[in-house]
Amino acid sequence: MIEGSLSAGVEGDVAEGFEPVAEELGRLTADFPSYSAQFCAYLDGRPVVDIWAGPDASADRIQGVFSATKGMAGICIAVLVERGQLDLDAPMTRYWPEFAQGGKGEITVRTALSHQAGLIGVEPQVGLDVLLDHPEMARRVAAQTPFWRPGNGVGYHALTIGTLVDELVRRITGTPVAEFFAHEITGPRGIDAFIAVPEAEESRLDDVLPAYPDGIEQPANPMMTPGEEQSLTGVAFNAAAQDPFNPPISNIRATRAAGQAAVGGAANARGLARLYAGLTQSVDGHRPLLSESTVAAVSQLQVAGTDLVLGLPTRFAIVFQKSDQRLAYGSHRAFGHDGAGGGFGINDPAYDLAFGYVPRRMSDPGGADARGLALAAAVRRIVAASHS
Amino acid sequence: MIEGSLSAGVEGDVAEGFEPVAEELGRLTADFPSYSAQFCAYLDGRPVVDIWAGPDASADRIQGVFSATKGMAGICIAVLVERGQLDLDAPMTRYWPEFAQGGKGEITVRTALSHQAGLIGVEPQVGLDVLLDHPEMARRVAAQTPFWRPGNGVGYHALTIGTLVDELVRRITGTPVAEFFAHEITGPRGIDAFIAVPEAEESRLDDVLPAYPDGIEQPANPMMTPGEEQSLTGVAFNAAAQDPFNPPISNIRATRAAGQAAVGGAANARGLARLYAGLTQSVDGHRPLLSESTVAAVSQLQVAGTDLVLGLPTRFAIVFQKSDQRLAYGSHRAFGHDGAGGGFGINDPAYDLAFGYVPRRMSDPGGADARGLALAAAVRRIVAASHS
Amino acid sequence: MIEGSLSAGVEGDVAEGFEPVAEELGRLTADFPSYSAQFCAYLDGRPVVDIWAGPDASADRIQGVFSATKGMAGICIAVLVERGQLDLDAPMTRYWPEFAQGGKGEITVRTALSHQAGLIGVEPQVGLDVLLDHPEMARRVAAQTPFWRPGNGVGYHALTIGTLVDELVRRITGTPVAEFFAHEITGPRGIDAFIAVPEAEESRLDDVLPAYPDGIEQPANPMMTPGEEQSLTGVAFNAAAQDPFNPPISNIRATRAAGQAAVGGAANARGLARLYAGLTQSVDGHRPLLSESTVAAVSQLQVAGTDLVLGLPTRFAIVFQKSDQRLAYGSHRAFGHDGAGGGFGINDPAYDLAFGYVPRRMSDPGGADARGLALAAAVRRIVAASHS
Repeated sequence: MIEGSLSAGVEGDVAEGFEPVAEELGRLTADFPSYSAQFCAYLDGRPVVDIWAGPDASADRIQGVFSATKGMAGICIAVLVERGQLDLDAPMTRYWPEFAQGGKGEITVRTALSHQAGLIGVEPQVGLDVLLDHPEMARRVAAQTPFWRPGNGVGYHALTIGTLVDELVRRITGTPVAEFFAHEITGPRGIDAFIAVPEAEESRLDDVLPAYPDGIEQPANPMMTPGEEQSLTGVAFNAAAQDPFNPPISNIRATRAAGQAAVGGAANARGLARLYAGLTQSVDGHRPLLSESTVAAVSQLQVAGTDLVLGLPTRFAIVFQKSDQRLAYGSHRAFGHDGAGGGFGINDPAYDLAFGYVPRRMSDPGGADARGLALAAAVRRIVAASHS
Repeated sequence: MIEGSLSAGVEGDVAEGFEPVAEELGRLTADFPSYSAQFCAYLDGRPVVDIWAGPDASADRIQGVFSATKGMAGICIAVLVERGQLDLDAPMTRYWPEFAQGGKGEITVRTALSHQAGLIGVEPQVGLDVLLDHPEMARRVAAQTPFWRPGNGVGYHALTIGTLVDELVRRITGTPVAEFFAHEITGPRGIDAFIAVPEAEESRLDDVLPAYPDGIEQPANPMMTPGEEQSLTGVAFNAAAQDPFNPPISNIRATRAAGQAAVGGAANARGLARLYAGLTQSVDGHRPLLSESTVAAVSQLQVAGTDLVLGLPTRFAIVFQKSDQRLAYGSHRAFGHDGAGGGFGINDPAYDLAFGYVPRRMSDPGGADARGLALAAAVRRIVAASHS
Repeated sequence: MIEGSLSAGVEGDVAEGFEPVAEELGRLTADFPSYSAQFCAYLDGRPVVDIWAGPDASADRIQGVFSATKGMAGICIAVLVERGQLDLDAPMTRYWPEFAQGGKGEITVRTALSHQAGLIGVEPQVGLDVLLDHPEMARRVAAQTPFWRPGNGVGYHALTIGTLVDELVRRITGTPVAEFFAHEITGPRGIDAFIAVPEAEESRLDDVLPAYPDGIEQPANPMMTPGEEQSLTGVAFNAAAQDPFNPPISNIRATRAAGQAAVGGAANARGLARLYAGLTQSVDGHRPLLSESTVAAVSQLQVAGTDLVLGLPTRFAIVFQKSDQRLAYGSHRAFGHDGAGGGFGINDPAYDLAFGYVPRRMSDPGGADARGLALAAAVRRIVAASHS
């Protein structure tokens, strides 16, 4: 990467022509003094932006990324599709016979992995100990009756999407998804992202900070109101058992150790950008991980609607989120995943772009931080203008 | 029930610990001087709140409850499912061969009873005389072409859901739904709720009062605007023939006499609470009316979307409404039905709770009165806190 | 038509009793000095309103009508259904075998023509030259992979709906849809509307004017922002290749010459009203073009949801739009189509009405001009009141 000139308070490198992205980050840190973040963008296989700024930011320390973990899990699913080991139109029971319980015999992999099967949680709700015990969670999900008529609604499987993916990967490959991810994807390609964080990496990990500095009230979590813990939202986040954001579930070592594939992962912006770039771009001599047809299959929009768990408009592909007004990830081809902390990883084949973003503080409201999306939009604008 | 101490202006009883519910009702009557209502809650088979307040309230007089009647009808459907006499996945024609007209041969009971079949009314629209003549209405519904492609939309079958349920009950049991309800459910269990109000009960009935006292303008009914009577909304409410809220359809003796299963019923809060409690709780020695699997089947969320008739977000189970932001009925398991007057009946298996609420004046806007929902939320909060 | 008395500044004729419609147009031109429009309404086969007003209006000059062209195309589809030549439930491949490419073998005519198949555009996006070359566009649409899982979403096929209709008409009749429309429908019936505008008619054509007079900023087109051209919206409008509204695509002679069946047409209000009237009414001795059953089939609501391309609530029949809060076309039976310029054609069988409306300036926001809809509502109000 050619080193560009950076704005005051912004560290790192930008390729020639991408200086406006650093300027945007400079403006953001000026506007929000307690804001700190890492941002990285790949174009055609090479980083064109690799910057960080703010009082609590680092170049490459890692951090729990909440649901951005789901994107890592989705990439493992994509690899199984690529290898012909997973058929999206097969019933789940082809790979996981016990899944047939509770009237779920007809549910396809496609329906289950696009948040349409109504398996948003288990009842009774479970504490962290059960959530992190994958075999036990898999047993409970297999036994669970769907929370709506499968296929007739869409709602965020906030934690169980990890169980669904992990069990599929285990049944097909014999390996937990966290290991599969490490051995097959990140290890060989030198990617700083983890579904399970090894003990040895913990010294490199920063805690996620609260949304606001001391003295400012933190956002309330409405699902924790007594009497609301049994809503669809409450079920999806196990609100009756434990507030997932207080303390942030990503800040708990046990979560990171267990490799819970919906929320257990950690990464930095460089790692997420390199991970997503490698799906479709040649990065440092590694061929793209996925063929065009696999990318098309797993990133195809499967469903759009009002999310029954989150109450927001939502658009899902296979595991991955798709771009919409709120999650403005880029072109119609873009796919990725955000996390409650505000971070995200995105691949956008239409522009040969990939992004990684990790803010240091919790996002308010949760999900992809609008500031990070603004940085990605700045990159996209530059790339689009250079093509026209 | 242990008698608790009640707030000023609030009559009735509350169990120990439930005093805050009476306080809430006291606040409401202070804030809205013309407001009067009955509210009753059962927990684990016993009433824990049984209160009323306001200048026009009574302890146990009954009142027309508009669409809360649909919940009574839905309970009859649930009983047929419980008894194995009705298969939700069967085509309607298995029970009602004439229903096949108009391209409706493939429509299942499940689709028809979850407001998805597009049978929101009949054309030409009909006056009260035809609406209350069930055999004639059944003939017309059977002959009707759906108002949208069946299964591709959801919209409130404001009046015809009563026809659909009644005809199914008649075909299967030989008895009109109003009689079935009285003989099989409310009679044996001493429940003060009626799909058809017997003449002998009329002396116990209060008229529904207008939304506001004399001198304040009553809410307009937009579907009655000339040129708008033929909209989906107009069709569903027969707006071309008669304004259903002026006079309130529940205030017409003929409606109550006929037992129209969508809007003809009457009840008080005690009756509605006891009715819904008895579905899943043992009440005064009566075993729960429904097994867990039947409750799960009929209360499963079937569809969510923007209601084509009402223009609001909606969530339906089999006949019953499900909890959402507007109809905040409780947990994801909660099911029930509201009425234009503002009243409702709810069962919430997650908390072993049931609610009945009957306000004396019309609700503005129509549907479950936010004040009644606040009372139910106060109960749920107390119960949830005592479990944690 | 009996000549009524018209308001100041309004020219034309209204039947007795319809004077309020001219008054409404008079008010609109007083409120918006730069506003000019033609409006025409048929009742039971005869024009009851035929008025125009504003500094740039004419009695019967024609104008490019953008997507109101789609309504003309939809009428051709309806004629094929009427004649038994097109089965809405057949797979597209029955008529167009090459359509099977890209996993589209199962898509039915019904799904494709109700904006549900995800064929909102082609990639790479194309300029006007390719768009107007129908055989080339048909090849590209046939080869295109859907932009979402077919049937799982609805989004405006802004340009490609024209390709789909035209190719079906060509395959079934051997004639391009523009010729079919001229020879079979408008020619014999003396209707001033064109999918392709013959050179000889060009002298009668007025350019569409910008939304606001000189000196006022014209509305921005967000899809033209660099980096946003590859969104679903961008794909549907070929934003990467050319802004369809700058210059207005209808103002380009090549568009009108080619007869692109989504946006190439031109008409005046009289033509659109007469066209839609003739579908169900006897006009000047011509029997209705369509039987009741065909009207029911093609105007049945097929899908409702949030449009994935436009981000607005939408309701589609077969090609035609259905009435909703934004496109308040009338009864539940009403169907028609609007255009970006603000004009529309509507048939409303419930009132035996048909409307044509062509404003001279672009609408802001695009789509059916609320002023034109207010004129139609005024007519409907009069007709409804006279029936009651």
